[in-house]
Amino acid sequence: MQAVRLCAPGDLRVTDVTRPRPDAGEVLLKVLAAGICQTDVHIRRATDSRTPDGTILGHEIAGEIAGLGAGVPGWSVGDRVVVHPCWACGTCRACRAGRENECHRTGGRKHPPATPGVTRNGGMAGYVTVPASAIFDIGDLDPAVAATLTDAALTPYRAIMSCRELLAPGATVAVIGLGGLGLMALQILRALSAARIVGIDRSEAAVELARDWADVLLIPGAGTANEVEALTADHGAEVVLDFVGTDATLDMAARMVARGGAIRVVGLSGGSLSFLARSANNPLPRGVTIMCPYSGTYNDLAEVIAMARSGALRPIVRTFALSEALEALDLLEAGEIRGRAVLLPHG
Amino acid sequence: MQAVRLCAPGDLRVTDVTRPRPDAGEVLLKVLAAGICQTDVHIRRATDSRTPDGTILGHEIAGEIAGLGAGVPGWSVGDRVVVHPCWACGTCRACRAGRENECHRTGGRKHPPATPGVTRNGGMAGYVTVPASAIFDIGDLDPAVAATLTDAALTPYRAIMSCRELLAPGATVAVIGLGGLGLMALQILRALSAARIVGIDRSEAAVELARDWADVLLIPGAGTANEVEALTADHGAEVVLDFVGTDATLDMAARMVARGGAIRVVGLSGGSLSFLARSANNPLPRGVTIMCPYSGTYNDLAEVIAMARSGALRPIVRTFALSEALEALDLLEAGEIRGRAVLLPHG
Amino acid sequence: MQAVRLCAPGDLRVTDVTRPRPDAGEVLLKVLAAGICQTDVHIRRATDSRTPDGTILGHEIAGEIAGLGAGVPGWSVGDRVVVHPCWACGTCRACRAGRENECHRTGGRKHPPATPGVTRNGGMAGYVTVPASAIFDIGDLDPAVAATLTDAALTPYRAIMSCRELLAPGATVAVIGLGGLGLMALQILRALSAARIVGIDRSEAAVELARDWADVLLIPGAGTANEVEALTADHGAEVVLDFVGTDATLDMAARMVARGGAIRVVGLSGGSLSFLARSANNPLPRGVTIMCPYSGTYNDLAEVIAMARSGALRPIVRTFALSEALEALDLLEAGEIRGRAVLLPHG
Amino acid sequence: MQAVRLCAPGDLRVTDVTRPRPDAGEVLLKVLAAGICQTDVHIRRATDSRTPDGTILGHEIAGEIAGLGAGVPGWSVGDRVVVHPCWACGTCRACRAGRENECHRTGGRKHPPATPGVTRNGGMAGYVTVPASAIFDIGDLDPAVAATLTDAALTPYRAIMSCRELLAPGATVAVIGLGGLGLMALQILRALSAARIVGIDRSEAAVELARDWADVLLIPGAGTANEVEALTADHGAEVVLDFVGTDATLDMAARMVARGGAIRVVGLSGGSLSFLARSANNPLPRGVTIMCPYSGTYNDLAEVIAMARSGALRPIVRTFALSEALEALDLLEAGEIRGRAVLLPHG
Repeated sequence: MQAVRLCAPGDLRVTDVTRPRPDAGEVLLKVLAAGICQTDVHIRRATDSRTPDGTILGHEIAGEIAGLGAGVPGWSVGDRVVVHPCWACGTCRACRAGRENECHRTGGRKHPPATPGVTRNGGMAGYVTVPASAIFDIGDLDPAVAATLTDAALTPYRAIMSCRELLAPGATVAVIGLGGLGLMALQILRALSAARIVGIDRSEAAVELARDWADVLLIPGAGTANEVEALTADHGAEVVLDFVGTDATLDMAARMVARGGAIRVVGLSGGSLSFLARSANNPLPRGVTIMCPYSGTYNDLAEVIAMARSGALRPIVRTFALSEALEALDLLEAGEIRGRAVLLPHG
Repeated sequence: MQAVRLCAPGDLRVTDVTRPRPDAGEVLLKVLAAGICQTDVHIRRATDSRTPDGTILGHEIAGEIAGLGAGVPGWSVGDRVVVHPCWACGTCRACRAGRENECHRTGGRKHPPATPGVTRNGGMAGYVTVPASAIFDIGDLDPAVAATLTDAALTPYRAIMSCRELLAPGATVAVIGLGGLGLMALQILRALSAARIVGIDRSEAAVELARDWADVLLIPGAGTANEVEALTADHGAEVVLDFVGTDATLDMAARMVARGGAIRVVGLSGGSLSFLARSANNPLPRGVTIMCPYSGTYNDLAEVIAMARSGALRPIVRTFALSEALEALDLLEAGEIRGRAVLLPHG
Repeated sequence: MQAVRLCAPGDLRVTDVTRPRPDAGEVLLKVLAAGICQTDVHIRRATDSRTPDGTILGHEIAGEIAGLGAGVPGWSVGDRVVVHPCWACGTCRACRAGRENECHRTGGRKHPPATPGVTRNGGMAGYVTVPASAIFDIGDLDPAVAATLTDAALTPYRAIMSCRELLAPGATVAVIGLGGLGLMALQILRALSAARIVGIDRSEAAVELARDWADVLLIPGAGTANEVEALTADHGAEVVLDFVGTDATLDMAARMVARGGAIRVVGLSGGSLSFLARSANNPLPRGVTIMCPYSGTYNDLAEVIAMARSGALRPIVRTFALSEALEALDLLEAGEIRGRAVLLPHG
Repeated sequence: MQAVRLCAPGDLRVTDVTRPRPDAGEVLLKVLAAGICQTDVHIRRATDSRTPDGTILGHEIAGEIAGLGAGVPGWSVGDRVVVHPCWACGTCRACRAGRENECHRTGGRKHPPATPGVTRNGGMAGYVTVPASAIFDIGDLDPAVAATLTDAALTPYRAIMSCRELLAPGATVAVIGLGGLGLMALQILRALSAARIVGIDRSEAAVELARDWADVLLIPGAGTANEVEALTADHGAEVVLDFVGTDATLDMAARMVARGGAIRVVGLSGGSLSFLARSANNPLPRGVTIMCPYSGTYNDLAEVIAMARSGALRPIVRTFALSEALEALDLLEAGEIRGRAVLLPHG
């Protein structure tokens, strides 16, 4: 089969590899769709990546079961599924509470994550083997749409759930960065809250796409935090979701968030914010929690799939053949993809 | 009456002032006890304080009602009360939810706080007038104990409540800094959780005082975060409460907190931590919320008073006459007060 | 001024009364709209009502401030407001937490409620005096719409908020009874959740009105609980909201609710359900909470007003002159009102 | 090996049976301790039990791993463990959230539970096979103590957790019935809350045992609800835990619970309470949730084990040889066991 492999740092290729076979507890998926993410761009370009040479990329996967390893009850060949990207231990306290994204034995300070397309072979290939515990049934949902939900919807969904109690009707939520994840965040917020939604992006095209879901749209500048304060009677936004993560967006987030509010930083562009243990001249108000969430839980994935099946989420996707993978990555890197790029290995 | 007044920046004195009279909605308190806090040291020494010249210090107040302004139903002369230090608007959305410490119109980025002893006349005096909406009945609780609860117990209580769901039996909480507030935190944690409590302080005397409530006591050093990781099977502490707030303690907190955990920074010694929007080499694990809480709610105050009345909290206090206020402040500044120093204006 | 008064049990009349004057802490409202509720029908017909003779009915009130009592800062003549129907003590633990609807001193087992139109003079009159602490600004929202929100939206909103954590995307909520409150419940659920909504009513006309918000509509019968089980893969509905409250609807609710779910009984038609302390043959699954909620909080009222102002809630109202009050009550009693009947005392 | 088997309805015997062998995913336990519960008395006496003829009783199990089936990573022969009594599907939405006690495929309206000693062979035997997913490590905790925690502590723990937000310092919780589970409830409440604890039991001996943990102890009678109201300034108890479940205790619970409070019915003696959809003369105040909880989650079990290991829980146990099982059951039925009876199959 064909696969998009990291042959060496900086050397990503579409090559021929042997079709894998499922071990006990695994299923073999015929890949129907594999989303492309900025993380893939980063892995392609990085010289210090934790991704081993030879890894097949692709952490947003939808497929059809083509084979079952031993000890996999409840699934049949032909079932159509997505793959939860946190391959967790299943037995630690976090996993037993359904928080696979906070597993004590995969990811975190001491353990590498077990993520398809990052530290395990992923979905940019004709076939992939995955743990049966990570798959979720999608029924008749379009696989290209379903694939993108496993990261581009799952991650914002968890970020929003982590501060949902602040999103009462009449509250304000600011969404900085209206790319693939930011647009999903707007749709999730619209579906699950009656809060006022302020979208912020420097691209006119992104702002245009966001009109269906945002109440207010702003082009970022020196006065953006003040604009949000003005909209909220000087109170600020109860929630700020930062899908960019530069010094500038973190500073903007700190200056527009309300007392007692929440900042969730999903975009990891390497920016930093000085968190200060002092009262005077502290841009961040007291009582604000700031946090970088990580992916989502298996049940979160079930919930975003349910939202897409009911029509509440409508990801914008642009599809490519597997052989076009490098061109698609080039386009994404150049900022020329609206919504999400998705590879269709079987057309 | 006598009062401890900030006559000018750096010039704090015990002087004679006129006894105040209660306006409508206020009560006049005969002050039975006024706690002394590091904040008072800071106001005394600051050259850029927000405290106006002439202000009487003292934000931890217990007293007996000596007079009632117009429109104060439900209270009688002779009732013994403490004073909630957040004098809030009472009508904004936060106040109407009982979160007076997050009032939209007092405190926060745009509004000065309305705090006795900081921006209003406080309790280091024979008498003080306070809003009737801020007082809470203490019955027969020792006023010297009760006074200290309004900050030294209230603030750690709110910090703990803000992440209580993480404090399950078997979880670990680290408390950095075992002074007045840190010792109260240990007692609150012991009363309200079955989590393992790790106390951390560089003073042997503080550690000695903490033995009744902590499960593990550590002297901080380069290896402290590793010690906490070792205690927790490499997982880290679900909650870290920092009652110091220097660069060193913030860094230690970041390195010992567990994935998905919480850091609450109560000590405001001016330290800073770089909050990073990146995955690689980020000392702070994903999913951790970090926050500086502010005081507590009126109902929180009711709850810490209830805990003291039932014997669950036992603040350590050392009392002084009002005329000894400056000496007591000197001792506190020199680190020679164990527990909390309290002035007794009427002996 | 004209007013709709309960002159004696069973004797409701439109009569002339003196315009009231606001006491300290009160405002005088020129009534712009007063909603009519089944509770008013009940008071009119009851022989054992707790409503004193002479009371002016009307607990759903919108008006314009026409006068201010002493000590009412922050409001001006001409402001347009609605009236929160729980006139609470403001100082008990529940009130200080913003749960005025659970006030320890008004309502409950030991204390009569303080409710306009029930135990105090209400809004079916040219003017009414109300506590300043109970009013909330409506800006330019239609007063007829705003009035109905104070009960017909507030009560279902609180019921839904009390079990919101069960309403995840993919979950199922059944709404029994699609009259004024049930239709509001559908709209609130649609605005705040992505759960599947099943509406149940025996009236074809009610079902027709509900099509915009419900995913599934059922006419109740012997098999209704089975239909809901079939829709949910035998699991049942995570939440059942009963806006009727007869023996039949309570039984239906018990038979269709999922394990660990919630039943909220808003309609108080006098039905009963045997709550059994046994496992075998218990129609109610283990882990289900059942509860009759009461009204909502002041902040809940702020939230439903925000939802109406943003267009998320669109109550259906039918307006009448104050002089037509008895005819409107007759129509409501006969089941001939769709949505909510509202009196406009000033046209 | 010897085992306590239900040979036929009413015919319970200690007999010889073949030692079982673990299937894939199972472990073989050498039983170190098996608790005896009122449920066992009920199964022994019932003529309509769901327990199949031939079943070995015992749902409170502690043991040592004596053998491993295929596919059981992470465990070794010799590990000492307890057994979570909810043998759940592991894949439904509830299981994936860590709520195995609300599994969609075991227990509930449509599915029999999978419970050792009830519908599967249990622990009153020399050996038992159990799913590896149900075991939890106890280290050096006394197995007789550990066994009792799996029901007598787990069930009250879940009941308390389901309404923990009501148990603030200063709140009141009433515990009706101070047998094995009620005494555990007192200890859990003492460890995890600073609420005032009111214990209620008609047995002087039970009341005597409860003195270490309860603040107030009452002998039930016609005036008990009034006594609780008097203790709480007419407000009532925020939480009532009923470990009896007769008509009388349910009625008492309804009459003493506070507005907005919670009743949790753990004792299933077959009583009933009329839940009324009406306001007037309703003994149950508005806003009260009433619920029969079921067992607890796997993580709940981990938490009660942690509490016992730290000394926060100290179950009172009385041990018997396996051959004395019927005598122990007789004693329990006669009300002559204080705390919990436990069988030690290997002495």
